[in-house]
Amino acid sequence: MEMQGTDIPNAGLGEATETLGALATPALLLDKDRLDRNLTRLSSRMAARGVVLRPHMKTGKSIDVARRAYRSEPGPITVSTLAEAEYFARHGFRDMTYAVGLAAHTAERAMRLRKAGIDLKVLLDSPEQATMLGAAGRAAGVTPSAFIEIDCDGHRGGLTPADPKLIVVAAAMVEAGVRLAGILAHAGESYGLCAPEALVAAAENERAVAVAAATTLRAAGHECPVVSVGSTPTAQFAEDLTGVTEIRAGVYMFFDLVMLGVGVCTTDDIAISVLATVIGTKPEKGWILVDAGWMALSRDRGTAAQQVDQGYGLVCDLSGKIYPDLIVAQASQEHGILAIRSGSAEALPDLPIGTKIRILPNHACATASQHELYNVVSAGSDTIEAQWPRIRGW
Amino acid sequence: MEMQGTDIPNAGLGEATETLGALATPALLLDKDRLDRNLTRLSSRMAARGVVLRPHMKTGKSIDVARRAYRSEPGPITVSTLAEAEYFARHGFRDMTYAVGLAAHTAERAMRLRKAGIDLKVLLDSPEQATMLGAAGRAAGVTPSAFIEIDCDGHRGGLTPADPKLIVVAAAMVEAGVRLAGILAHAGESYGLCAPEALVAAAENERAVAVAAATTLRAAGHECPVVSVGSTPTAQFAEDLTGVTEIRAGVYMFFDLVMLGVGVCTTDDIAISVLATVIGTKPEKGWILVDAGWMALSRDRGTAAQQVDQGYGLVCDLSGKIYPDLIVAQASQEHGILAIRSGSAEALPDLPIGTKIRILPNHACATASQHELYNVVSAGSDTIEAQWPRIRGW
Repeated sequence: MEMQGTDIPNAGLGEATETLGALATPALLLDKDRLDRNLTRLSSRMAARGVVLRPHMKTGKSIDVARRAYRSEPGPITVSTLAEAEYFARHGFRDMTYAVGLAAHTAERAMRLRKAGIDLKVLLDSPEQATMLGAAGRAAGVTPSAFIEIDCDGHRGGLTPADPKLIVVAAAMVEAGVRLAGILAHAGESYGLCAPEALVAAAENERAVAVAAATTLRAAGHECPVVSVGSTPTAQFAEDLTGVTEIRAGVYMFFDLVMLGVGVCTTDDIAISVLATVIGTKPEKGWILVDAGWMALSRDRGTAAQQVDQGYGLVCDLSGKIYPDLIVAQASQEHGILAIRSGSAEALPDLPIGTKIRILPNHACATASQHELYNVVSAGSDTIEAQWPRIRGW
Repeated sequence: MEMQGTDIPNAGLGEATETLGALATPALLLDKDRLDRNLTRLSSRMAARGVVLRPHMKTGKSIDVARRAYRSEPGPITVSTLAEAEYFARHGFRDMTYAVGLAAHTAERAMRLRKAGIDLKVLLDSPEQATMLGAAGRAAGVTPSAFIEIDCDGHRGGLTPADPKLIVVAAAMVEAGVRLAGILAHAGESYGLCAPEALVAAAENERAVAVAAATTLRAAGHECPVVSVGSTPTAQFAEDLTGVTEIRAGVYMFFDLVMLGVGVCTTDDIAISVLATVIGTKPEKGWILVDAGWMALSRDRGTAAQQVDQGYGLVCDLSGKIYPDLIVAQASQEHGILAIRSGSAEALPDLPIGTKIRILPNHACATASQHELYNVVSAGSDTIEAQWPRIRGW
């Protein structure tokens, strides 16, 4: 069923484009200046507090983004998949934490990376996982290093500091020959907040719970060198980090509309957007149709639970200026429907067929994952300066 | 910042696995028997009615899936991106409809495919697009062929048969040197239905509106050879297709939980699932944690608006047997939380760490698009028979 003798063009990724206006749509844009500002803001904040920042690469999934975080040489990072760990290892990163609970096949694969000289720490919260990891370490001829996951707010996995299982797990690690890297907590419930006082309290709770868990382990004779906490909201709002040795955060690099709703950024901080083209108008319905649907924007509707529902994204002109209350109200696979937010008195702007727009995403991790690469731009410039590939898969 | 002299393993896609139990998770599974049965069911239905079936490749995005639909030689297909058009053209398909409204850059790119001998039809609903397409055709030295999009249920784009713009667009096509392929309608609102009578009515409405538009165009002296309608629900429920020449449908190949809720399939028809591993338990909360989050399942929550909310998916054992009322209740990027559906009296099954499960997806198009390839299995067998790559991007 192969076609013979015809030269089929491949006009997609391979095609060089130089300006924003000429770029085929939909396409993912990354504002390098905003990225750099976001990176500097959090790293300065942590440097001032003497706490290590271990950026989470699950948002960027790009060596070029990582190189903006670490200009001179690779530093500590967090990863969400072993595909990320292997990719960043190939590009020179050695100090990594894989922050997803361990399974047998990931334990084996992680130990292969340790065998290759990568200081990859893994995550567990049960004696079964400790035993499994010890066996994988012995099979690979390396000593595994793992964090115990601590539950600070009931968000998903982990043990509370008062849970007697905490000491049981630590003992199982000793028994299995697994080094205790420390404890790791994640204030995942902070994404559901929006008041500054509540965010400060969530950060303090995350800190206090993490320190309590480390104290329990140390009292039982375990070393527990690292106390690792973090989420973008708590990292930005933590006032006191006493007892914490490192912070993890990821979405702070790009920010998004969910983070805007939480109150940790402004729209001017949002570094990624999806470029789209107007392909139709339905003035009688108050609709403008664009060629970016959920395939380009993701199905994420994280702002639906917030005070301001942004639909599938907030619409800007080509220069990044927001059209007041114009959102992607509906999305099918390759179609987006722009409309004025319900209840707003704004008028639908006149955007004829062919007009290019930019859409700020609800959730940077989800939207970026729909794309192969970042088209890198600078504020106020129409030039695509670079194309940075992303990785995906597991 | 490159690492020297260390051999970093790449344990991901390249690794050969032979059994379901040994496959690294999360991973996308495709049951070939169910796929074949779904393909045969709709193609027999259309053959019996003398209507051409033009399968939509936006769901499968795979030449191997397309080859199950067309065993001997390539037939007519629908595509949702020009990346799909170019890919399927490279694999021998020549008769395609690109069913997303045209922009200037897609018009040029589509004309390059026509120049290469591909009978690619495009979609428009405005005189501006007709003029733009004519210019792209002249620049490429080919005659463009386009459908006029007809709005049958207010779902997104297109013109109603009574809209005077219909004749204006057809005249603009003549003026611009664009051939009228026919009219194209899509009963997108049918996805929101669930009663058989309502689905039959939606199909009849789609047919009647499409035929009315063709009649209007023909009365004005335009040929309008093709009357193309379709959506999976209306394709499965249409009783009379008088005046319709072809049907488009895509998700019927795989089906999903949204289609189950609409009432067009059973769970035994759902051909794709996501394989995952239990990585933790929280019995006090009624939770089981797995390593498939929204990155593996997609953010689609299409069943939230239906009578039965399936969370992020319905959970089965490794053989595909459903655990009653066990759903993916919450999802973060790489974590899923399994719980018994709210209000159910079922008990949480005992799934120890390391247990493999399969998750039926809400929306096959969205879930499949999160993966690089299909791991192909047959019912009742533990063997991975093949890995079929998918394409993505635009």
